[in-house]
Amino acid sequence: DPEQYAKVEKAVHDLLDAFNVNWEDPNYTDTPKRVAKAYMEYWANGYAREAEDEVTVFPNSSGSEDLVMVKDMKFYSMCSHHLAPFTGYGAIAYMADENLLGLSKLGRILDIYARRFQLQERIGAQTADKIMQLLRPKGVMVVLYDVEHLCMSSRGVKLHEASTTTVATRGIFKEDAQLRAEVMSLINK
Amino acid sequence: DPEQYAKVEKAVHDLLDAFNVNWEDPNYTDTPKRVAKAYMEYWANGYAREAEDEVTVFPNSSGSEDLVMVKDMKFYSMCSHHLAPFTGYGAIAYMADENLLGLSKLGRILDIYARRFQLQERIGAQTADKIMQLLRPKGVMVVLYDVEHLCMSSRGVKLHEASTTTVATRGIFKEDAQLRAEVMSLINK
Amino acid sequence: DPEQYAKVEKAVHDLLDAFNVNWEDPNYTDTPKRVAKAYMEYWANGYAREAEDEVTVFPNSSGSEDLVMVKDMKFYSMCSHHLAPFTGYGAIAYMADENLLGLSKLGRILDIYARRFQLQERIGAQTADKIMQLLRPKGVMVVLYDVEHLCMSSRGVKLHEASTTTVATRGIFKEDAQLRAEVMSLINK
Amino acid sequence: DPEQYAKVEKAVHDLLDAFNVNWEDPNYTDTPKRVAKAYMEYWANGYAREAEDEVTVFPNSSGSEDLVMVKDMKFYSMCSHHLAPFTGYGAIAYMADENLLGLSKLGRILDIYARRFQLQERIGAQTADKIMQLLRPKGVMVVLYDVEHLCMSSRGVKLHEASTTTVATRGIFKEDAQLRAEVMSLINK
Amino acid sequence: DPEQYAKVEKAVHDLLDAFNVNWEDPNYTDTPKRVAKAYMEYWANGYAREAEDEVTVFPNSSGSEDLVMVKDMKFYSMCSHHLAPFTGYGAIAYMADENLLGLSKLGRILDIYARRFQLQERIGAQTADKIMQLLRPKGVMVVLYDVEHLCMSSRGVKLHEASTTTVATRGIFKEDAQLRAEVMSLINK
Amino acid sequence: DPEQYAKVEKAVHDLLDAFNVNWEDPNYTDTPKRVAKAYMEYWANGYAREAEDEVTVFPNSSGSEDLVMVKDMKFYSMCSHHLAPFTGYGAIAYMADENLLGLSKLGRILDIYARRFQLQERIGAQTADKIMQLLRPKGVMVVLYDVEHLCMSSRGVKLHEASTTTVATRGIFKEDAQLRAEVMSLINK
Amino acid sequence: DPEQYAKVEKAVHDLLDAFNVNWEDPNYTDTPKRVAKAYMEYWANGYAREAEDEVTVFPNSSGSEDLVMVKDMKFYSMCSHHLAPFTGYGAIAYMADENLLGLSKLGRILDIYARRFQLQERIGAQTADKIMQLLRPKGVMVVLYDVEHLCMSSRGVKLHEASTTTVATRGIFKEDAQLRAEVMSLINK
Amino acid sequence: DPEQYAKVEKAVHDLLDAFNVNWEDPNYTDTPKRVAKAYMEYWANGYAREAEDEVTVFPNSSGSEDLVMVKDMKFYSMCSHHLAPFTGYGAIAYMADENLLGLSKLGRILDIYARRFQLQERIGAQTADKIMQLLRPKGVMVVLYDVEHLCMSSRGVKLHEASTTTVATRGIFKEDAQLRAEVMSLINK
Amino acid sequence: DPEQYAKVEKAVHDLLDAFNVNWEDPNYTDTPKRVAKAYMEYWANGYAREAEDEVTVFPNSSGSEDLVMVKDMKFYSMCSHHLAPFTGYGAIAYMADENLLGLSKLGRILDIYARRFQLQERIGAQTADKIMQLLRPKGVMVVLYDVEHLCMSSRGVKLHEASTTTVATRGIFKEDAQLRAEVMSLINK
Amino acid sequence: DPEQYAKVEKAVHDLLDAFNVNWEDPNYTDTPKRVAKAYMEYWANGYAREAEDEVTVFPNSSGSEDLVMVKDMKFYSMCSHHLAPFTGYGAIAYMADENLLGLSKLGRILDIYARRFQLQERIGAQTADKIMQLLRPKGVMVVLYDVEHLCMSSRGVKLHEASTTTVATRGIFKEDAQLRAEVMSLINK
Ligand SMILES: [Zn+2]
Ligand SMILES: [Zn+2]
Ligand SMILES: [Zn+2]
Ligand SMILES: [Zn+2]
Ligand SMILES: [Zn+2]
Ligand SMILES: [Zn+2]
Ligand SMILES: [Zn+2]
Ligand SMILES: [Zn+2]
Ligand SMILES: [Zn+2]
Ligand SMILES: [Zn+2]
Repeated sequence: DPEQYAKVEKAVHDLLDAFNVNWEDPNYTDTPKRVAKAYMEYWANGYAREAEDEVTVFPNSSGSEDLVMVKDMKFYSMCSHHLAPFTGYGAIAYMADENLLGLSKLGRILDIYARRFQLQERIGAQTADKIMQLLRPKGVMVVLYDVEHLCMSSRGVKLHEASTTTVATRGIFKEDAQLRAEVMSLINK
Repeated sequence: DPEQYAKVEKAVHDLLDAFNVNWEDPNYTDTPKRVAKAYMEYWANGYAREAEDEVTVFPNSSGSEDLVMVKDMKFYSMCSHHLAPFTGYGAIAYMADENLLGLSKLGRILDIYARRFQLQERIGAQTADKIMQLLRPKGVMVVLYDVEHLCMSSRGVKLHEASTTTVATRGIFKEDAQLRAEVMSLINK
Repeated sequence: DPEQYAKVEKAVHDLLDAFNVNWEDPNYTDTPKRVAKAYMEYWANGYAREAEDEVTVFPNSSGSEDLVMVKDMKFYSMCSHHLAPFTGYGAIAYMADENLLGLSKLGRILDIYARRFQLQERIGAQTADKIMQLLRPKGVMVVLYDVEHLCMSSRGVKLHEASTTTVATRGIFKEDAQLRAEVMSLINK
Repeated sequence: DPEQYAKVEKAVHDLLDAFNVNWEDPNYTDTPKRVAKAYMEYWANGYAREAEDEVTVFPNSSGSEDLVMVKDMKFYSMCSHHLAPFTGYGAIAYMADENLLGLSKLGRILDIYARRFQLQERIGAQTADKIMQLLRPKGVMVVLYDVEHLCMSSRGVKLHEASTTTVATRGIFKEDAQLRAEVMSLINK
Repeated sequence: DPEQYAKVEKAVHDLLDAFNVNWEDPNYTDTPKRVAKAYMEYWANGYAREAEDEVTVFPNSSGSEDLVMVKDMKFYSMCSHHLAPFTGYGAIAYMADENLLGLSKLGRILDIYARRFQLQERIGAQTADKIMQLLRPKGVMVVLYDVEHLCMSSRGVKLHEASTTTVATRGIFKEDAQLRAEVMSLINK
Repeated sequence: DPEQYAKVEKAVHDLLDAFNVNWEDPNYTDTPKRVAKAYMEYWANGYAREAEDEVTVFPNSSGSEDLVMVKDMKFYSMCSHHLAPFTGYGAIAYMADENLLGLSKLGRILDIYARRFQLQERIGAQTADKIMQLLRPKGVMVVLYDVEHLCMSSRGVKLHEASTTTVATRGIFKEDAQLRAEVMSLINK
Repeated sequence: DPEQYAKVEKAVHDLLDAFNVNWEDPNYTDTPKRVAKAYMEYWANGYAREAEDEVTVFPNSSGSEDLVMVKDMKFYSMCSHHLAPFTGYGAIAYMADENLLGLSKLGRILDIYARRFQLQERIGAQTADKIMQLLRPKGVMVVLYDVEHLCMSSRGVKLHEASTTTVATRGIFKEDAQLRAEVMSLINK
Repeated sequence: DPEQYAKVEKAVHDLLDAFNVNWEDPNYTDTPKRVAKAYMEYWANGYAREAEDEVTVFPNSSGSEDLVMVKDMKFYSMCSHHLAPFTGYGAIAYMADENLLGLSKLGRILDIYARRFQLQERIGAQTADKIMQLLRPKGVMVVLYDVEHLCMSSRGVKLHEASTTTVATRGIFKEDAQLRAEVMSLINK
Repeated sequence: DPEQYAKVEKAVHDLLDAFNVNWEDPNYTDTPKRVAKAYMEYWANGYAREAEDEVTVFPNSSGSEDLVMVKDMKFYSMCSHHLAPFTGYGAIAYMADENLLGLSKLGRILDIYARRFQLQERIGAQTADKIMQLLRPKGVMVVLYDVEHLCMSSRGVKLHEASTTTVATRGIFKEDAQLRAEVMSLINK
Repeated sequence: DPEQYAKVEKAVHDLLDAFNVNWEDPNYTDTPKRVAKAYMEYWANGYAREAEDEVTVFPNSSGSEDLVMVKDMKFYSMCSHHLAPFTGYGAIAYMADENLLGLSKLGRILDIYARRFQLQERIGAQTADKIMQLLRPKGVMVVLYDVEHLCMSSRGVKLHEASTTTVATRGIFKEDAQLRAEVMSLINK
C-alpha cells in the first residue's frame, strides 16, 4: 500500500527532524525510506496477514493423542503503549484431536499476532484462540517467556534484567494442572 | 525537603568525623552532601512516594484470567536493623480479575516499598497487599530471591554466600499449591 | 538393491544439474554416487530393516519392576514434507513385566524408525508401539527432544533456535502422571 | 523544549495512524504522549547533554599509573539507519596520567553519546575522544560488545544471534598490543 | 526460472520414488513441489545473487581505523560432496581504510556464498576476497566456527560432536599475529 | 574507643531520625547501637589495625622463585565519595626473593586497607606497596575484580551490572608483560 | 579455658611428634599452639556456646504466615568418627507463628551445632529442634546439602565427588509434602 | 588366589597374542601380569567380598526418621554381555527405622556389587536389597545415573552421548511418589 | 580372519571362567562370541586398516594457505599397558600446501591409529606423521584432550577426574608458537 | 609401625578428651583407632614412601619431543602450620628427552609429596625436582590450582571462596614464556 508507506515515511522524517538531524549526512538521508520499508515488511506486517492464509490443516489419520510442543521460537513485537520493541520466546504445546498442523505453522501464527502494536498478554491469548479455532485440539497452551520489554528496560527504573512471562491455556490445559506441569518441565529442559 | 536534607548531611558529616577523615582530601570534602542527596533521591525515596500516584489501573476488557508474571526485577533496600543495604530480585505473579496493570508498574510498587529502612519480609507483604488493594486480582504472589543482606555477608559469620528468600501469597495463590508450583517453575526457567 | 541405487544416483545427478554445477570440478564429479551410497547405507536405511531382526527378548527372571531409561540417544531423520534432515535426542523409559531388552536395543529401534522420510510425531509413536509389541512391558514412554528441523530453521521464519518435543506414552505411563513426572525429572538431570 | 515535544508527539501519532490503530482503545490513546516523553527523557536525551556538565576531573595526587577499567556497562542507543534500538555493553579502560575521573563518570560519557541516533562505531570513537580530551590520560580503550542491533536481528536475514563488537583505542593502547591483550583478558574474566 | 524449478521438482520426485513412498499419503504428495521451492528460495539461492547488488559502500568520512567485528552470524550451506547441509557461525572482522560497510551487509555477503553447493574452506575465502574487493579495507578476517557437517555427523564414523573451523585472513590480518589473537579473544568473549 | 562509638551511634540516630522512623518499633530502637558496633568491629575496623601487627615474615630458606597467587578473596569496603559499600574479589600474586608470607596473610593485608572509607584504586596500590615493603619480593601484582560499587549500581544510571577492575603492579610485574599475562590466565582459570 | 588449651596443644604436639617432624623448622615450631587456638576459637567452639545467648526472639506483630528461607549458608564441622572436617551448605526454612527471628540468627544456630565433633544427621536434627523450641513456628525444615566429608573423599574409596544430603522436618513441613516441594524448588533456584 | 591370577594372566596373554603384539616392546611385555593384577584388585574384586564384612550397623538411638542421601558416588563396573566397562554415579537414599549406617558404607555396598561382571539393573537391585536386609530401614531408593556403557558408546551405533538411568525402590519409596520426587529433586540440586 | 576370531573368543572364555561365571545364565553364555566380534569390528580394528585405503588426496587448486581445523572428534582406544579403554577428543589442524583432504578423513586417520592397543602419545604422533606423509602440508598439529584413561581412573589412586593432553606438532606448527596459540584459542572456543 | 600407630592413637584420644566427649557414645569410642589408621594409611602416608619405589622409567625409543600433560589430578594434603587439610588439583606437563614415564606415575609422585604435613609451595617444588631427577626431561611444569586451605576457609577471615595457585617450572619451562602460556591454555581448556 503506497499511501500507507508514504504516511510512515513522512512520520519518520518528522520525528528525526524534531532532533535536527543533519539530512546531508548519508547516515540519515534515506532513513525515513528504510524505516517505512521495515515497518511494512517486518515490524508491523501482521496487520496485513491472516492465519487462515498461511496454515493448512490435515486430518489426524492416526488418531494420536500424544503431546506436541515447539519451544524457543523467537518473536518480535512492538508495545502499543510506547512503540518500543519487545522480544522473547514462545512455546506452544497442544494435544491433537481430529486435526494436525505442520510444526512450523505454530511459529507462523505466533508471528502474525506479534508483528503488530501489541500487549504481550494479547499475543498469547490471540495465538491460543486462533489455534483452538483452526485446529480444534483437545487443548492448547501458549507460554511467552524471557520477554524483554525495551520500554521497561531502557528507561528510568532499574529493570533492565527483568523479563515477563505470560501463560495462556485453553481446553484440557486449563483444567489439568499435571499436564501444565509437564509442559513447564519440558520447556525448562 | 531542605531541612531533612540538612539533617542527613550533618549526620553523615558526624559519622565520618568520628573516624577523623581528612576533610581537606577532595575525596571526603563533599561526601556529606553527596550522601544526603543519594538518600533523598534513591536509597530512602520510598517514604515520599505513594503507589497510587504512580500506577494507573485499566479495566480488563477481555476478561482474561491467564497468568502474568514479571521476574528478575532487581531491587535495592536498606535493612532497618543495621542500616546496611540488601539487594536481590523480585518476581510478581498475578491472576487478573476485572483490572489490569501496566507491566512496569509491578516493579514500581516493589521499588516504593524497598526504598525505605526495611525488613525483607515486610517488603514482600506490603507489595502483595498493595497490589491486592489496587487491582483486586484473583490472587498475587511475590517472591523475593537471591537476596544478599550486607549486614549478614560483610560481618563476622561465614555467610557471605547466603541468600534469603521470602514468599508472600494472597488470594488463590495462598490456597492453590499447584499454582504456586507453576510460578516457581517459571521463575526457575 | 542396485536398481534402487541407480535411481537415487540419477535423481541426485539431475538435481545438481539443475544448478549447472561444473561436472569437471572433482568436488562434484562423484557426488551422485556418494549421495546414493549415503541414502542406502544411512539416511534411509530404515526401510530395509525390521526391529525383529535386530532385537532379542529375554525372560525377566528376577521379576524386577524397577524403572529403566536410556536418554540422550542422538537420532537422525529426514522430514517427509521437505526432505530436510531433522535431528535430536530420544529418551526411552520402560517398566518391565515378563521380558527384558538389551540396553542398546532401545536405540536401535528408534534408529530403524528414524532412518526414513518421517514425521517426528510418527517416530515416537512407532517406537513406542513396537516396544509394547515386542516386550509387553507394563508401559513405555518415548520423549524426542531438542529436535531441530532444518526445514524450519534454515528457511524464511526466524525459528533457527526453535526445537520440537514430542511425547508418546503407552500403558501405565499414559495413566500415571506421577510416573511421567519422574521420567521428566530424570531426563532433566 | 515543548515545541520539540509537540513535533515528536505528532510524528508518532501519524505513524500509528498509518496503521489505523483504534484511538478509542486506551492502549493507544495516550501513546503519542508517552513516546514523545520517552524520546525526550531517555532515548534521545544525549542531544541535550554535554559531558563537561556531568563530569568533574581530579588531580591524580598519587601519580599512580595503574590500570583502571569499568566493564559490563549496559548501554542503549538507536541506529541512525533504521531508527531501531541497539543495546549492549561497554568497557572502558584507561591508564591515568595527571588526572583522575570518578568511576561512574565513565558510564555517563558513554551514555551521553549512546542516547542519540547513532552508529556503534561512532559511539566508541566519540567516547574515547572525549575522555582523551577531558582527562588527558596516557591512553584509553573503549570496547562495545555483545551489541544486538534490532534492525539486524528482527528483519529478514537469519542474524538474530549475531552481535557486533567495536574497539576504539587511543594513546598507548593504540601502540601496545600487550596492553590491549590484558584488557581483553580482564573483559573476558 | 520455471524450467529450473521443474527440473528440481522432478529430481526430488524420482529420489523419493526410489524408496516407494506412498504418493497418496498427504505427507508426501506435494513434497517435490515444496522441496523445489525451498531450493530456489533458500538452500541454493546464492547462485542467483551478486554481492554487488545487495551491498552499498560509503566513504569513511571520519577516517577511523578502529576494529569492527560481527560474530555469531548463523549460516546454512550444503556440502558439494554429499549434498548434505552444514551449518555454523561466521565472524567477520575488518579494519577500515577509505570505505565503510553497513553492519548487516557482512552477513549478506557470507549468505550469498553459503547458499550454494559448497566447501567450507571456499565460503570463507570467497567472502574474504569479495570484502577486500568491494571495500578495500586494510584487512579482513573471516572465521567460520562451530560448523557441523551433517555428512560427517550423521553417517558411520563417531563424529557427531565434531565441528570444523576455518580461518581466512587477508591484508594486515595475514601479517599481524597479535591482531589475529585480538579477534580470537573477542570471538571467545 | 567508647567516645568514637558514641559519636557513631549519635550520627546514626540523627540520620534515621531525619526520616522520622518510629523509635518504638523494636526494629529501629537499637539500630544506632548495632550500627555503631558494626562500624567499629567490621566496616571501618581498618583504621585501628596495622599490617605489621598481623603478619610475620619468614626467611625463604629454599630460595624458591616460583609464582604464588591467592585469588577469589572476597573483600568489603566503603566508598569515600558516597559512604556506600563496594565489594568484590582480590587476587594477589608475588614472586618471592628472600622472604615468604603465610598464605592467609595476603588476605589480611587486603582486608586492613579495604575496611576503611576508600577508593578502589587506593586499596590495590596500598596493598601492593605494603607487600613490597614487608616482604621485599621480586614483584607483586594486585588485581581487584568483579567489584560492584553500590553507589554506582543502586542509583540513577543503568549500571547495576557494571563491575570495576583495577590492576596494581610493582617490581618485575610492572616490566614483564608475559608474567602479567600468566597471572591473568591463572585468575581466569 | 587455659587447661583445655594446654591439653589440646600437648595432644597436637604428640601427634606431630609421632611423625618425627623437625621441630627446628619454623613451619612446625608453633604449630601445636596455632592448632590449639584454632580448635578453641573455631573448629570446636560450639561446645562453649548456647543458642539462647546469641539469639533474640521478637513477637510477630504482623501475624504474617509467609515462608522465610535462608539458604547457601556455608558450615564447617568435624566428623565424630574420624576427626576429619566436613563442610557444606545449609538451608533453613520456617513458617512463622507468634515469633520471629533475625535472619542471621538462623546461621548462628546452625553454626553452634556444627562447630563440634558431629554427625551430619545430628546437626540438622539439633538445629531444627532448637528452632522449634526457641521460636515455636508452625514448622521448620533444615536441609544440609553439597556436604563433603573429608573422611569419605580423602581416603581409599573413589568417593571424592560424593556429597551427602540430610533433611530434617518438623511441624507442618513433616506433614505437607507440597510445602517441602516448594522449599526444594526454592533451594534449587 | 594365585591359580585364579594365573588363569587371568594367561587369558590376557592369549587375547593380545591373537593380535600379534610385539612381546619385545616393553609396552606389552608385562601387560598380562598388570591386567591380571587389575582384575583381582579392582575390576572384579567384588566376587571376593561380602557386604557383611565391611559394614557395621548401629542402633538408631535418636529414633530419627529424617531422610539421608549420599549422591554422586562414582562407580565402575563391567558389563556381563561385552566385558566392557560401564561407569556412572549412584545415589542412595534411605529413611531410617531402628538402625543406622556410616555414610561411607553406602558407597561400599554399591562398590561390592559393581565390581563384578554385571547388568546395571542388577547392581541397583542387589544394592537396594542388601541395604533392606542389613539395615531394615523404612525404605531405600537407589538411583544409578549418568551411566555410560562403553559397549554402547564405543561401537557402531551413534550412541556415545547416551546414558542409562535405573531406579530401584524398596519399602516406602515404592509406595510414596511424593517421597521419590523429593529424592529426585535433591539429586538434581 | 576366523582363526584370530577363535583365539579371541577362547581367551575371553578363559578370562570369565577364572571368575567362575555361571555359563547357564544367558547373560554370560554368548559373551565370548560377542566380545570377539567387538574386538574384530571395533576395538582393535585398526590393525587391519591402512590410511592409504580410506583417504583420497586432492590437488589444492586454489592454492589457499588458510587454516583448517576439525575438533571434538571423539576417539576410542585401548591402553597397551592395561588393556583398559581410554577415550577422549582429538583436534587436528593443518595449513595446506599443494594438497587437500576431505574433512571427515582427518577423523578416519585418527581412528585407524586409535583402534589398537596403544599409548596416547603414539596415537598423536602417528596421526601427525601420516598426515605429513599423505598430504605434505606446510604443517600439522594434533591435540588429544579430555582423555580419560580407565586404567588411571578406575583403580587405586584418586585420579578419576584427571585427564591427559598430548600435543604433536609437525612443520610450521613446530616452529611458530603464535600459530600454536591460535589453534589453542580455537579449540577452547 | 605399631609404636607410631599407638602414639597417634593416644594423641587423638587426648585431643578429644580435652573436649570431654562421651566415650560411651559408640560414635566416639573407636575414633582414636580409626584416626590413627587414617593417618598411617592415607593422610600422612607420604613419609613412608619413596618415588623411586613406585615409578619405572622407560627409554624414549621414538625420541618424541611432543608435550605431555596430565591435569585435574585431585590431591589431599595437610598444612604444616595448622594441621588442617588442603586439597586441590595438580597439573604436570613435561617435554621428554631420553626417558618416558607412565601417565599415572605423575599423579603418584604428586601424591607422595602431598601426603605429609606440608606447604603448598613445597609440594610443587619437590614434585618438579623429583621428576627432573628421575626423568631428566627437557623441562617440567607443575601447577597446583583451585587449592582450598581449610585453615584459611574455616576460620575468622572471609576467605572461604579463596583458592591458592602455585607454579613451579624447571628447565625449558623456566625460560620459555610461550611454552608456559601453552600449558596454561591447555589447563584452562
Ligand atoms: Zn511499553
Ligand atoms: Zn540487617
Ligand atoms: Zn519439514
Ligand atoms: Zn540499523
Ligand atoms: Zn560432505
Ligand atoms: Zn561511590
Ligand atoms: Zn567420618
Ligand atoms: Zn554391554
Ligand atoms: Zn593403562
Ligand atoms: Zn594452614
